[in-house]
Amino acid sequence: MSEGSPAAFTASEAARKIQQGLLTSEELVQSCLERIRDVEPKVQAWTFLDEDHALAQARAADARKRSGEPIGPLHGLPVGLKDIIDTADMPTENGCALHKGRTPRADAAVVSMLRAAGAVILGKTVSTECAYYSPGKTRNPWNPEHTPGGSSSGSAAAVAASMVPLALGSQTNGSVIRPAAFCGVFGFKPTHGLIPRSGILQLSRTLDHVGLFARSLDDIALLAEELAGYHEDDPDTRPRSRVPFQQISREEPPIEPMLAFIKTPHWDRVDPEAKDAFGELVEALGERVEEVDLFPSAAAAWDWHKTIMEVDMAASFEREWEQGRDRLSPQLRSLIERGREVRAVDYKRALGAVAPVVASLDELFLERYDAILTPAAPGVAPKGLGSTGDPRFCTLWTLLGMPALSLPLMQGAGGLPLGAQLVGRRGFDARLMRTARWLGGKLA
Amino acid sequence: MSEGSPAAFTASEAARKIQQGLLTSEELVQSCLERIRDVEPKVQAWTFLDEDHALAQARAADARKRSGEPIGPLHGLPVGLKDIIDTADMPTENGCALHKGRTPRADAAVVSMLRAAGAVILGKTVSTECAYYSPGKTRNPWNPEHTPGGSSSGSAAAVAASMVPLALGSQTNGSVIRPAAFCGVFGFKPTHGLIPRSGILQLSRTLDHVGLFARSLDDIALLAEELAGYHEDDPDTRPRSRVPFQQISREEPPIEPMLAFIKTPHWDRVDPEAKDAFGELVEALGERVEEVDLFPSAAAAWDWHKTIMEVDMAASFEREWEQGRDRLSPQLRSLIERGREVRAVDYKRALGAVAPVVASLDELFLERYDAILTPAAPGVAPKGLGSTGDPRFCTLWTLLGMPALSLPLMQGAGGLPLGAQLVGRRGFDARLMRTARWLGGKLA
Repeated sequence: MSEGSPAAFTASEAARKIQQGLLTSEELVQSCLERIRDVEPKVQAWTFLDEDHALAQARAADARKRSGEPIGPLHGLPVGLKDIIDTADMPTENGCALHKGRTPRADAAVVSMLRAAGAVILGKTVSTECAYYSPGKTRNPWNPEHTPGGSSSGSAAAVAASMVPLALGSQTNGSVIRPAAFCGVFGFKPTHGLIPRSGILQLSRTLDHVGLFARSLDDIALLAEELAGYHEDDPDTRPRSRVPFQQISREEPPIEPMLAFIKTPHWDRVDPEAKDAFGELVEALGERVEEVDLFPSAAAAWDWHKTIMEVDMAASFEREWEQGRDRLSPQLRSLIERGREVRAVDYKRALGAVAPVVASLDELFLERYDAILTPAAPGVAPKGLGSTGDPRFCTLWTLLGMPALSLPLMQGAGGLPLGAQLVGRRGFDARLMRTARWLGGKLA
Repeated sequence: MSEGSPAAFTASEAARKIQQGLLTSEELVQSCLERIRDVEPKVQAWTFLDEDHALAQARAADARKRSGEPIGPLHGLPVGLKDIIDTADMPTENGCALHKGRTPRADAAVVSMLRAAGAVILGKTVSTECAYYSPGKTRNPWNPEHTPGGSSSGSAAAVAASMVPLALGSQTNGSVIRPAAFCGVFGFKPTHGLIPRSGILQLSRTLDHVGLFARSLDDIALLAEELAGYHEDDPDTRPRSRVPFQQISREEPPIEPMLAFIKTPHWDRVDPEAKDAFGELVEALGERVEEVDLFPSAAAAWDWHKTIMEVDMAASFEREWEQGRDRLSPQLRSLIERGREVRAVDYKRALGAVAPVVASLDELFLERYDAILTPAAPGVAPKGLGSTGDPRFCTLWTLLGMPALSLPLMQGAGGLPLGAQLVGRRGFDARLMRTARWLGGKLA
């Protein structure tokens, strides 16, 4: 792919060119499709892609532009969707053998929002089985012998390989931040409830989040601005005024941010090489970062997450388990079986433990810090395609519903990307983006 | 007690007289205290009553009235509170041996609302142990050999015996509607989330409701109007505009109401005598009532309620069970022990089953009916003080969070009161009161 090829543009660049009449959606989508023809045999990011349907959407967008009708902020931009996000015009198979041939009747809330903003739904990207651990066919674009991470494997890989500028995924444990880090793109897991999950495969009401992939922070802000909102079928969303993510994320912080470097109780799992890289990062930040210990009671959070995820997924996939457990992977089957045995009082205790930890972490932000700096994963994407890697460095922030960004700031072994994770206060997603931009500038 | 004695006034009558300067709060409270001295040895409705403190509140109310400052709708009216409702100036012992001597630091939300409306908190009324089954000392004012019902035993008995015009209780299964029926007073269990439960002993977030006792429908409306509202500590309440319960409940229905008589799958538990009384009632209503069968899937609702109540109470009383289970009653201990064994997936399945049944019943209201007529209990208050009677005719409506009124419309064996229950659509509490008033007029 030549550098000037439209497929290489960020979403923000492409949107600007389309608005200015310097690029058509058809040219952009054609360029993405060419790129896909080149690299998809190696990367395997897509589970459904109908070139004609994508081009028809692009041509309709161009016709609308030419007609002089108002156009949305994502006008003509192709977007990839993890194949657990319902689309009325494409199959949605949830990476699950039992859901083969599933064709939803309605778009998920986020898909309606994307279409309303003018986006072209390019196709569906590979998810692990039911967004859990059992890997799909996708490979890491940086090295096909390594995992792209999961469960939003195809979305991360497709954006990393410049097959599409934007993609959506989901995170219940580490399914956005980890593949974004492994594939060297920006990943964003918003505050719980910021983006509605209606029409997306439910694993756990408490833990599920929609996630965003892009190749720039601007693009993350552009996309988040269109997707934050209320939907009546997602009880954790609330009516709210529009958040100007792009504007806030570009503002200069009023005082220079201070980061809390939290190693978490799992730091000993981090690769020596990644430890060194973090050491250098912290050194480069000088007095703008301080190491902070997580209070001891938070160490139990990984167990609470496990309890909640096992129970909620056992309940969510009860029908699959009853009707076709032999066609589920051993990982998913044994998760469900563990979940079925958990006692309700233990489940309720885990759920009840979340709010006090959020409140304690809120104090950290109120007292001194703008964001938490922490690993996105124990290291670079591991070799091999049998596992999607270790999500444990995402678990706590998912459980607490705090906004998190995966930032492609570092490089590790074999030239593979090494992500840093920046975590913000619940409800302060735009400020987290602003801090991330400051961090990028600081290290540039 | 003479008929003209202020203790015999309804709350609405007394409020009017106080506002017009024809009665002082002190006179009213004195009259109630006299009545209590007379009948309390027999009825045993109170667990805490400080005459001086009650009179001091009354005198302060009178002083405020004399000063010309604005007064609230409950100005000077004494109210009894079930002893699971926190009061900063009186003990709150939850009917539980382990909570003896407990003195909360803050008022429950409803107590703050009562005080803001000018009420005098007369004292605390007897609750069964932790608002569950094990009876307290209270006896039925109509016949001391019979139970007053429970768990809001003291509140129902105190209002019935004219010791206080208004009282609050709570209902997690049948703890307001049943004792109201057994004691021959009006009982109101509002829509789930209408009245905040902050500062009240929690048994189950899903099932707990604040309940109201009074000797007239006007009084129920008067009290509900002050207590409906939002509180930040009760996640099931919502900010809403003030509902004019008194005004709506007094309006003439635009078309004559139609009732659905629902016997429920437990009709065979109803006493023959009560069956006859319902037969007469239905006959008297003629074409304004139709018998309606509950759809078969609703029959499982009693099991769902049992699962939810067992689990939630096991979680709510985990500390009591761990620290002093030998001082809990065998009933409560075995409930907790059953709850501790329930699997989380079964609990979640029960919780998830509620919304579809509410939606199905909504259709009944949309299509044809203004309210559901159904027994409040299998018959009159049973003889004996070892049990508070059978809550099963309240279970379904509690689970579904629908508003319910117990109406003292009939008489049964031994001259004991026999209540009818009128159930409304979720969120249509005021209309339920209007229908109840129509029903009272129709039968007069």
